[in-house]
Amino acid sequence: MFKSFPGYKRIIFLFFVSYAHVFSSGQEPEQVIKAFFDNALTGREAMYNLEYLCRQTPGRLPGSEASLRAVMFAAEALKKAGADSVWLQEITVPKWQRGKESCSVISSRAGSVELSISALGLSVPSPPGGITAEVVEVKDFEQLGRLGKEKINGKVVFFSQPADNRIINTFTGYAGVVIFRINGAAEAAKYGASAVIVRSATQATHDFPHTGVTRYQENIAPIPAVAVSPFGADRLSEMLRKDPHLKVRLVTECRSYPDTVSWNVIGELRGTLHPDEFITVGGHLDSWDITEGAHDDAGGCVQAIEMIRLLKSAGIRTKRTVRAVMFMNEEISGTGGITYAREAQKKGEKHYAALESDRGVMSPRGFGFDTDGERLKKLSELSRYFQPYNIRDFDKGGGGSDIGPLKPSGTLLIGYMPDTQRYFDYHHSANDTFEKVNIRELQLGSAAITSLIYLIDLFDL
Amino acid sequence: MFKSFPGYKRIIFLFFVSYAHVFSSGQEPEQVIKAFFDNALTGREAMYNLEYLCRQTPGRLPGSEASLRAVMFAAEALKKAGADSVWLQEITVPKWQRGKESCSVISSRAGSVELSISALGLSVPSPPGGITAEVVEVKDFEQLGRLGKEKINGKVVFFSQPADNRIINTFTGYAGVVIFRINGAAEAAKYGASAVIVRSATQATHDFPHTGVTRYQENIAPIPAVAVSPFGADRLSEMLRKDPHLKVRLVTECRSYPDTVSWNVIGELRGTLHPDEFITVGGHLDSWDITEGAHDDAGGCVQAIEMIRLLKSAGIRTKRTVRAVMFMNEEISGTGGITYAREAQKKGEKHYAALESDRGVMSPRGFGFDTDGERLKKLSELSRYFQPYNIRDFDKGGGGSDIGPLKPSGTLLIGYMPDTQRYFDYHHSANDTFEKVNIRELQLGSAAITSLIYLIDLFDL
Repeated sequence: MFKSFPGYKRIIFLFFVSYAHVFSSGQEPEQVIKAFFDNALTGREAMYNLEYLCRQTPGRLPGSEASLRAVMFAAEALKKAGADSVWLQEITVPKWQRGKESCSVISSRAGSVELSISALGLSVPSPPGGITAEVVEVKDFEQLGRLGKEKINGKVVFFSQPADNRIINTFTGYAGVVIFRINGAAEAAKYGASAVIVRSATQATHDFPHTGVTRYQENIAPIPAVAVSPFGADRLSEMLRKDPHLKVRLVTECRSYPDTVSWNVIGELRGTLHPDEFITVGGHLDSWDITEGAHDDAGGCVQAIEMIRLLKSAGIRTKRTVRAVMFMNEEISGTGGITYAREAQKKGEKHYAALESDRGVMSPRGFGFDTDGERLKKLSELSRYFQPYNIRDFDKGGGGSDIGPLKPSGTLLIGYMPDTQRYFDYHHSANDTFEKVNIRELQLGSAAITSLIYLIDLFDL
Repeated sequence: MFKSFPGYKRIIFLFFVSYAHVFSSGQEPEQVIKAFFDNALTGREAMYNLEYLCRQTPGRLPGSEASLRAVMFAAEALKKAGADSVWLQEITVPKWQRGKESCSVISSRAGSVELSISALGLSVPSPPGGITAEVVEVKDFEQLGRLGKEKINGKVVFFSQPADNRIINTFTGYAGVVIFRINGAAEAAKYGASAVIVRSATQATHDFPHTGVTRYQENIAPIPAVAVSPFGADRLSEMLRKDPHLKVRLVTECRSYPDTVSWNVIGELRGTLHPDEFITVGGHLDSWDITEGAHDDAGGCVQAIEMIRLLKSAGIRTKRTVRAVMFMNEEISGTGGITYAREAQKKGEKHYAALESDRGVMSPRGFGFDTDGERLKKLSELSRYFQPYNIRDFDKGGGGSDIGPLKPSGTLLIGYMPDTQRYFDYHHSANDTFEKVNIRELQLGSAAITSLIYLIDLFDL
């Protein structure tokens, strides 16, 4: 009966090849994983790579000179890490540049101050000399609509809603207010606003403004849009209570240029058994212009490079081809991730799984898997290998914006989940510097990611 | 048959009283816990208290003027938080003071540099003018013994062993090397060493020296002892490879004074049903003299104060009396914890449970319980209440040096367990500042601690 099953020889063959690594190296998975962690926690490559990206290429906005130097550096780092091949994948990116910017509050009753602001990405400039107008503070779009054209026309709209600090998941808290950053300018423009000031989307209370992209709508003339620091937002609210007719003078000299060319950086280790199946691990190389972009997302890039180095150093060859991908232009329009998926489809590449590290590089908590049922159960059971490293959270969730475009082709999407309580203290602000990354925490993440990819490949999960 | 059981009336009575809070307030435990977290994550009291302790009373060494100001401040903060009563408990503390200190490497072959050092606590001073001598580098006590008096006599011994970064639990890694800080001077003195330089007990590679107590032995003349920064240690090793006969000139002007008086600070909320049973939550108010002592352990103190505030604000009265205790002199000789336990025994106070927060105030992971069997199982089952807050680790372990003296009386000892991967970057060094604490992470801990104490009391665990 067994013999009558036509594929049995192939199955037996595959079984032996599948476990060839374990047998040939004489290493149990637990030993391999320990080798990854030992190497990650004692090597200094990740620290040097992170330091370079932060300190030598800060402000890696798509199309910027810094982003090009980062592309060159990342390609070199992948070669040094031991990738079989490294190449650049051309993509189209928008180009936008910040100029002088300032926001002065002018009031004879409440005093005059300079607020810490940062123009939102893609914002149009103010007219030369800036915009001087009264301010209307609103909490949300509903209030904006109620006030309507009569109250809004010609004014500067101030979206003052802070993130709800009671929400435990900081990404959920962020999602509740980032809508004002993304859509605030377009919505306020409908009612004739002359500009918008948006409270930074963060749980922090400091004086750093947090930038990020804003999106205009067609057929509505764009208006200047800036983020104000949480401290500045509190201050402006207080001043408005004392003098509802105070004015602000807002200057933004930012400018958009025609689309230009940039690159995703890709390095791979060829698979032994299924070299034409791919597992992609990535972060994004671009950052906002006002920041070193250490946690967002030089750290994620460094972890992807480390995966190559750790596999190579341990002498581990996966069955599938493993790729480290540093996506370009995550921050503005996601063309790096979109192009990567489109090219994969064009070439008929089967992408078995993809993992993204873009939630900062604080201490690891676990992984989120964008799947369910039996597959999620099996993936969750891998948590036993991570017990010695106190990495316990293997839950449904995860994914990421750069690997998202691979989903329609059936790729398993995975999100790396560090502790994110302090993430939005840094995100999109000048506060996101090299010193804010603890290299040990970064490297526990590198080893955890490498271990997970190794196990998924080993057990064909 | 039920009636013949003699204590049944008392049991039924106790049952009703036990759950009186739940019924009277109409709140399920889940709601009470949510109220604690909501309040903790939106209030600013903890931030202000931490800022005061760090910035207005840095260097809270037992017996110092800063420590006394911290005592006064903590008592006031407990009153403001709503404690029924607040008092100071007198204790005896050693008094030791740092003076000028320096360590110059002098070598015609390897160059001359100043190393970043910090005298160890209780170190004796060098002779006026310092000690100038050759350096013998050793990795451990075994190597020291092998070299013996012949090679060590008159020399400065340099204990250069770094913490093993491969060890995941940073406290375990620390324990592997802190023995050289504690016992290095006494051991080296046996072989006639003139002084010791000990590599800082930390996983970090920066240029901050990390101090901490050193312990001499009777009948062996004490010698000066200093910690050198990890960076300085690497440098000294490298210079010794180039020039094994280089000399260091070591100056320590520190001085010990007679024992003096200080205070534990205690605030309590009286229990409703068992006011003479106590649950103690504490941190230590003293710190090393070279640091703000933010993570070690102003943060733990602030969390204890917050417990009082959060219970009071939520209108929760526990059955047992809950105490916030800020221990004095954890760092040098633990007389705060010892006195607290001794006084409790004298007064016949039953200490039901005691929790210590002295592992920093990074993002919470869970709790360690110094018990096992059925009790551990029941305590572990409380983790379900903490799921919404992503606090999952309810394990055996825990305790703490200030609550340890309560153990012989049968008190359940509990350790608060934050993520500790970056803790030893700060510990006992000038790097342990207010800015290194994320208030959101601190406050998740405050709410978690308050919730645990509330549940243990509610369910008589």
